[in-house]
Amino acid sequence: MIRETALALVKEQLTEHRYKHTIGVMETAIKLAEKYGADCQKAELAAIFHDYAKFRPKDEMNKVILEQSMPKELLNFNSELWHAPVGAYLVEKEAGISDREILDAIRYHTSGRPGMTLLEKIVYLADYIEPGRHFPGVEDVRQLAESDLDGALIQAMKNTISFLMKKNQPVYPDTFHTYNSLIQSGRID
Amino acid sequence: MIRETALALVKEQLTEHRYKHTIGVMETAIKLAEKYGADCQKAELAAIFHDYAKFRPKDEMNKVILEQSMPKELLNFNSELWHAPVGAYLVEKEAGISDREILDAIRYHTSGRPGMTLLEKIVYLADYIEPGRHFPGVEDVRQLAESDLDGALIQAMKNTISFLMKKNQPVYPDTFHTYNSLIQSGRID
Repeated sequence: MIRETALALVKEQLTEHRYKHTIGVMETAIKLAEKYGADCQKAELAAIFHDYAKFRPKDEMNKVILEQSMPKELLNFNSELWHAPVGAYLVEKEAGISDREILDAIRYHTSGRPGMTLLEKIVYLADYIEPGRHFPGVEDVRQLAESDLDGALIQAMKNTISFLMKKNQPVYPDTFHTYNSLIQSGRID
Repeated sequence: MIRETALALVKEQLTEHRYKHTIGVMETAIKLAEKYGADCQKAELAAIFHDYAKFRPKDEMNKVILEQSMPKELLNFNSELWHAPVGAYLVEKEAGISDREILDAIRYHTSGRPGMTLLEKIVYLADYIEPGRHFPGVEDVRQLAESDLDGALIQAMKNTISFLMKKNQPVYPDTFHTYNSLIQSGRID
């Protein structure tokens, strides 16, 4: 699918603000893919579609999670997490994207998962650091992403976990497991 | 088992410094048990024995973990975690303590676990806040423990997770799950 077709499909689903964010994620994902040797076309498409389900009603997302046998545990955590796996499903069903790597990059762009692929890492990070993002700690992650993809990802996970703990919110287990997996894969002992 | 017998058994296993810590944990655990309505005798014994295996050689602990079918995952995490489940096993085998609640309070005193019992919470916290403990954040937890057992426990978990992330260390999953479980059990929604 070419960029213009994909953008047109996504634009219908998003607010103007979120569409601008999507453009930022797309541009950042392409840059990261070039830098770290990932497939730029896949990075572009995954980034364009990453928030496809962002504005679906909660009850629709809830239904998809149950009907498609996604992890039920999702329902015990913040509904902000739901649009990622539900998006992967809807992008395949409604937009006809069938590439597993692209769909997984959409599926795991909010929670992460242990053993993330290069493409998944790129989309996760692009979503976190695109130029429209302004929150405490984002600049550190942006800097790290220039030269250390896993370092940037670890810092993003740490920020997310700290942010949620500060707000007395639960942390989705995949996020913890991703942090552990990245830390442990980099250890020498 | 009376206090003197238990203390004599434990004293042989510990350094002088760690023995003093154990006395602090014992006194704190009894106070917390009185305050929150737990069994004071069980709290006393669990506290006395909580660090029983602290100075066992790593290879002995490793062997017990494998032979007793404890979670193998423990071996991928800091060996500081091992003395708790190994201690529960050795306290039963060598000191003849068979009370399941006491053994579980020893077993989970370092990691915590989702759905901790009152006794487990008390021993975990007593270990964290006994008067000999001096580290950033301990005073907040001490204050909370005066009136809010779960609040104190949540703060202790947050401190532990933050401390490990700061050191780029992995966090044992049970610790994350305990944090989530405490946060989620207190939610109104």
